[in-house]
Amino acid sequence: MNTRLTELLGIEVPIICGGMMRVGTAELAAAVSNAGALGILTALSQPTPERLKAEIQKCQALTDKPFGVNITVGVVTTPLDYSALIDVIVKSGVRIVETAGRSPEPFMPYFKAAGIKVIHKAVTVRHAMAAERIGVDVISIDGFECAGHPGEQDVGGLVLFPATAQSLRIPVVASGGIADGRGLAAALALGCEGVNMGTRFLATQEAPIHAGIKQKIVEMDENQTQLIFRKFRNTARVYKNSVAEKVAEIEAAGGDFKDVHTYVSGEKQEEAWSTGNIEAGMVTAGMSGALVKDVPSCQELIDRIVSDARSIIKGRLAAIAA
Amino acid sequence: MNTRLTELLGIEVPIICGGMMRVGTAELAAAVSNAGALGILTALSQPTPERLKAEIQKCQALTDKPFGVNITVGVVTTPLDYSALIDVIVKSGVRIVETAGRSPEPFMPYFKAAGIKVIHKAVTVRHAMAAERIGVDVISIDGFECAGHPGEQDVGGLVLFPATAQSLRIPVVASGGIADGRGLAAALALGCEGVNMGTRFLATQEAPIHAGIKQKIVEMDENQTQLIFRKFRNTARVYKNSVAEKVAEIEAAGGDFKDVHTYVSGEKQEEAWSTGNIEAGMVTAGMSGALVKDVPSCQELIDRIVSDARSIIKGRLAAIAA
Repeated sequence: MNTRLTELLGIEVPIICGGMMRVGTAELAAAVSNAGALGILTALSQPTPERLKAEIQKCQALTDKPFGVNITVGVVTTPLDYSALIDVIVKSGVRIVETAGRSPEPFMPYFKAAGIKVIHKAVTVRHAMAAERIGVDVISIDGFECAGHPGEQDVGGLVLFPATAQSLRIPVVASGGIADGRGLAAALALGCEGVNMGTRFLATQEAPIHAGIKQKIVEMDENQTQLIFRKFRNTARVYKNSVAEKVAEIEAAGGDFKDVHTYVSGEKQEEAWSTGNIEAGMVTAGMSGALVKDVPSCQELIDRIVSDARSIIKGRLAAIAA
Repeated sequence: MNTRLTELLGIEVPIICGGMMRVGTAELAAAVSNAGALGILTALSQPTPERLKAEIQKCQALTDKPFGVNITVGVVTTPLDYSALIDVIVKSGVRIVETAGRSPEPFMPYFKAAGIKVIHKAVTVRHAMAAERIGVDVISIDGFECAGHPGEQDVGGLVLFPATAQSLRIPVVASGGIADGRGLAAALALGCEGVNMGTRFLATQEAPIHAGIKQKIVEMDENQTQLIFRKFRNTARVYKNSVAEKVAEIEAAGGDFKDVHTYVSGEKQEEAWSTGNIEAGMVTAGMSGALVKDVPSCQELIDRIVSDARSIIKGRLAAIAA
């Protein structure tokens, strides 16, 4: 299934498994890429540049197809040696980078010199346009429905996707609220060149999280997520569990970031991922979980999404438009 | 353009101009219906059952095509004689009713006995399923992006539309965040049988509001709306002007409904509609205003949306799916 996105990135289907902290490992990224979509390793899931290098090599051993590395800037409080990470990415022969958080402008010369394609994640049309101006190749635009950080403007993908696509010349990828062939067909209709999914890929055989968490995603409905950190202007959408509700309570009672930090540390999310106890910590999940009904392999999932989107377009939509 | 919705309602294109207080007059409803879509009069815009009867007769004089009457239950504080309104609707030969607010269950026997098709507006899957059980014919599901009352769950249409469509047997209409052929094609891809639009129809030649307000809708972007009344669990999405910002301030400062009522009375919205001064009161508008770029006639608008949706489906999407 060809779009400007697949042509630019050299992939077979216009689907990206966006970078996910702790989940974007070589196994998952390679499984996604081997199925013809774009898998993405997350650089910050690795504790050192050396470990990132090893993870990239592992992914290269698992797939001959293109994959990307996500590098998120400015969201961690401890200082990070981004130059060392980027040096590893460039020297390892990675061809695609996904940037998120702050503007990738400082790193663009390195990426461009190495011929790397840059996918930048944005949450507003204004930031997407600014990123286009500094030379990124693709914008992955995150709507209100997305897991993690939807920004502070709360614009649903139904409006944000076409508003972004009509404002840019480079390909736009729809992110947030999409989990199936219906969503892929809708995103293409809205002017996007592909879709990015996170929550849907959590519930796959290859996602390195406990089966109990995958099952919770299968069971969740569209009301099972919650926004936290709004008062810190660092809004995050997470699975609505007792931890998220406690954080919301502390925020509402006037608590500061330190007051909530104990509830939301990455270690606690990791505990949930690894033990299957969804109450063990804050767990990132998006609204699209409502549309997730099973735990297939990445290959089964991607084949099905493409096949469903094709059949919606050639069957249902063609009949209505006839 | 035929779907289960057009067949059920006897209309030519799967587009509804949803009931809008003060705007859903005979002129606008007839213009929409004459263009092959479904226009809707709002019963509560008329001060008495007699005036509603006269407005229905006026609409019948202006169009031979089907139109609907909206009746919204339980949102006004003054007691209303709904039986008298429904009596007028039924005896005037109206064939389609749009219900909103509380459940239409008490009125269903009257509507059914008269062979009237009932479109019920809902904001959650649970309420949509309940309405299907009591026999409504169509659900018009309002996503988070919509003008007016999106409910308290904040689920974007991208997730709410397919979640609703997969849960019901009756046709589902996508409402909120849609203003063009891209949105119509996307809604059909997501499993809906048509679209409902309000904000887009405000910016038409026939909408009975001042040209200055239409121009403000043309100029607005996706960040130009605001949610108010959240603390009263009666959330409304309105145009972000100084009045809406004042209401938000009063709410944040702990004000009660009486404190904000002076800023948001219907009379003040009417003043904005009639004078063109967008700062004159609270003005209902949805996020889809970001996608509105002109003020066409209803006929031009509807022809264009259908033509654009067809060309997206037969051109862009068919090529991608090939």
